[in-house]
Amino acid sequence: MTSFNIVSLIRKKREKQALEPDEMCYLIQQFSKDAIPDYQMSAFLMAVFLNGLDDVEAAALTREMLHSGVIMNLSDVPGTKVDKHSTGGVGDKTSLVLAPIVAACGVPVPMIAGRGLGHTGGTIDKLESIPGFDVNLDLKRFVEVLKKHKLVLIGQTDEIAPADKRMYALRDVTATVESIPLIAGSIMSKKLAEGMDALVLDVKFGSGAFMKTRKNALQLAGKLVSIGEEFGKRTIAYITNMEQPLGNNIGNWLEVREAVECLKGGGPEDLMFITHQLAGTMIWLGGEAGSIDEGIERSQTVIRDGSAIQKFREVVQEQGGSTDCLDRPDDYPSASHRFKITASRSGFVTKIDAYTFGMAGVELGAGRTIKEDRIDPQAGICMDVKIASEIKEGETIARCFTNKEVATDKVRQILLDAVTISDTRPDIPVLVTDTVTRDGVTPWNS
Amino acid sequence: MTSFNIVSLIRKKREKQALEPDEMCYLIQQFSKDAIPDYQMSAFLMAVFLNGLDDVEAAALTREMLHSGVIMNLSDVPGTKVDKHSTGGVGDKTSLVLAPIVAACGVPVPMIAGRGLGHTGGTIDKLESIPGFDVNLDLKRFVEVLKKHKLVLIGQTDEIAPADKRMYALRDVTATVESIPLIAGSIMSKKLAEGMDALVLDVKFGSGAFMKTRKNALQLAGKLVSIGEEFGKRTIAYITNMEQPLGNNIGNWLEVREAVECLKGGGPEDLMFITHQLAGTMIWLGGEAGSIDEGIERSQTVIRDGSAIQKFREVVQEQGGSTDCLDRPDDYPSASHRFKITASRSGFVTKIDAYTFGMAGVELGAGRTIKEDRIDPQAGICMDVKIASEIKEGETIARCFTNKEVATDKVRQILLDAVTISDTRPDIPVLVTDTVTRDGVTPWNS
Repeated sequence: MTSFNIVSLIRKKREKQALEPDEMCYLIQQFSKDAIPDYQMSAFLMAVFLNGLDDVEAAALTREMLHSGVIMNLSDVPGTKVDKHSTGGVGDKTSLVLAPIVAACGVPVPMIAGRGLGHTGGTIDKLESIPGFDVNLDLKRFVEVLKKHKLVLIGQTDEIAPADKRMYALRDVTATVESIPLIAGSIMSKKLAEGMDALVLDVKFGSGAFMKTRKNALQLAGKLVSIGEEFGKRTIAYITNMEQPLGNNIGNWLEVREAVECLKGGGPEDLMFITHQLAGTMIWLGGEAGSIDEGIERSQTVIRDGSAIQKFREVVQEQGGSTDCLDRPDDYPSASHRFKITASRSGFVTKIDAYTFGMAGVELGAGRTIKEDRIDPQAGICMDVKIASEIKEGETIARCFTNKEVATDKVRQILLDAVTISDTRPDIPVLVTDTVTRDGVTPWNS
Repeated sequence: MTSFNIVSLIRKKREKQALEPDEMCYLIQQFSKDAIPDYQMSAFLMAVFLNGLDDVEAAALTREMLHSGVIMNLSDVPGTKVDKHSTGGVGDKTSLVLAPIVAACGVPVPMIAGRGLGHTGGTIDKLESIPGFDVNLDLKRFVEVLKKHKLVLIGQTDEIAPADKRMYALRDVTATVESIPLIAGSIMSKKLAEGMDALVLDVKFGSGAFMKTRKNALQLAGKLVSIGEEFGKRTIAYITNMEQPLGNNIGNWLEVREAVECLKGGGPEDLMFITHQLAGTMIWLGGEAGSIDEGIERSQTVIRDGSAIQKFREVVQEQGGSTDCLDRPDDYPSASHRFKITASRSGFVTKIDAYTFGMAGVELGAGRTIKEDRIDPQAGICMDVKIASEIKEGETIARCFTNKEVATDKVRQILLDAVTISDTRPDIPVLVTDTVTRDGVTPWNS
């Protein structure tokens, strides 16, 4: 491989010029093998943060991070493998519901998921609240379970995209995390390593998401779709609103419990709407439906006929988890402390700040402030209202669960401040605003 | 001192926000004592490169770099101490001429100067071409010599602004050198450490300078003046044109020789114009003239009456140098190889690219590509023309001197290409375009 002068590459990006693919490859390869110092990489990352990466550069970056580790070969597994990724939000347990649905429809779902950080939860932490559930299967077992059940759910392994892991650690301490092309490269290098054939993305914006605005979410979705398609994988992204928590429950076991309710035919409207939309798209991409709408119908059918919850039970059992808690959720051990948030006036709920609820969840023990924090599976919050709910003074807004000696009054006050009650009933927020495909952006109502 | 979260400080600058003085102080202090890693500093430096520093931030940065080392106390030395700094150019030996002039007028000049790098030369390298001249006086001797002669000329010491030295080393390998506030902070922290009371700056722009445009030079001058005045030092900057080399000679001994000619009443017009302007300003700032114009008159007088060259001889002798070469420059050993560049057509010289002449000087042995390169005092170029000179085909444009086996034909061709000869006589370039003071910018002709 040609070698390049690292300072010249940093300078090029500093001057808003695009790096050639072989220049980007060289940079990432050298970084992967410790051949360039962190201080040069961090200067480059800040230049990327401020000056961006075009689609060709982002694809080159992703390719090198992908090739820094193992790339799964799932050609042995029959069918079109389809995965889903969410950029993360508060109360977002969609993956837990849609993965069994899609697999039950015959589309293999090879899911390598993440852990929660800050105000957002992670699928892997949620699964670990199921006693015995093993998220650390090796890659051989990963393929076996996928072959057998068309579904497997594991956490990141050190073998997948190690360059991304190293780069993320550096970004974390140099204020270069929130860069759209870097986030896109990080997500896609890990997803591409799974060996999937197509991908559905849920790119969230709003208080409870990492992207605060629809505009930023659209930018990120555009980059993700562009990278996916560049690698020959059909990639479709939905832009979804995360101003209020998704569904009713926040916290690991509480979210699994809610997901199980969904799989049994219950579950809140907003959560089921997104679940069916994403699942329907995955089923269509997987070739088990002729259109997204037909995919949505199939998604609804496998809930009605019980095959979705059965699929989840199967996989939980296969991965060592106890199905008792799925069958008798009330028997799950409860948190030692609980307290309620009640309305201080009557009216309509006009705002539920998702970020604050997410951070309150962390405070109660459901999340992490730093990567090393331990998670309490029982901790969390159950919401009794959504935006546009009518409520009377003294009625319950939310119930909090914790095993920590937390400052109850403080958490209560923070949550009360995060909920606005007014005299007029607001519109129910639009949940999906746009679809992003290789053909561009389509606003939802068009 | 309050402590701050480094990542938050990097993020603040990344978001184009201004750091508070105590935040900037903390950052530089922690960097100085190795308490923050280089990778965080380099991310910060890139954010500064791309988002800038306001005047308050630049002053705070300068203050901490200044206080990272020794700050000279010259209160023992009577008079208003005035120094000069040039941002560097090709053939710029002005300091060698004006320092003795100003000292001969009774204004103490405590000069700590730099070395050359790339296409530009450095005062210290030039002085070292004088046999025996010691630029490494300790700071005690520095004060002694200044007291005795009102003039002392030394190189950077490790005791002066060590944080600047460390930061420069990091900037050098992370493509963050050419940042106006960082350059300003670096220059001013070293100048303020000398203990001077007032400062005259020559901020050059054009092919042979670091700032390529008048606009950038004005920005840098503005920042330098703002920092100087913030520290209570009268600071005046001239913006000067460096499209063609200054004076006739490029190379260390060749430039000393030309400076000596100037001090003896000769010397080329452009060089003497700038010298008298800067010297006159220094003499006025030092309180030995009632106006800049009167300062210029005094500057001319000390050349005419021989006291300027006498001052230079005194200081050379005091610092261990041989005055033989000043008195009989023809006896200075000559380079082993010499060759001429001659005009390929008749006409008027319309362009002499200073950068190319500077780099040709490096090729001949007069400069450095990297800091560790050794300098050949004899190597260099003597120009026989300036822009607007009339020349006939076959007449000499320049004479090259070297002790290296250089590719003569290559250097000849490069230099020929750097000189344009046309049919029409061009205007003589304006040498000084603006004056920058605490009151703002004054274009030269106003």
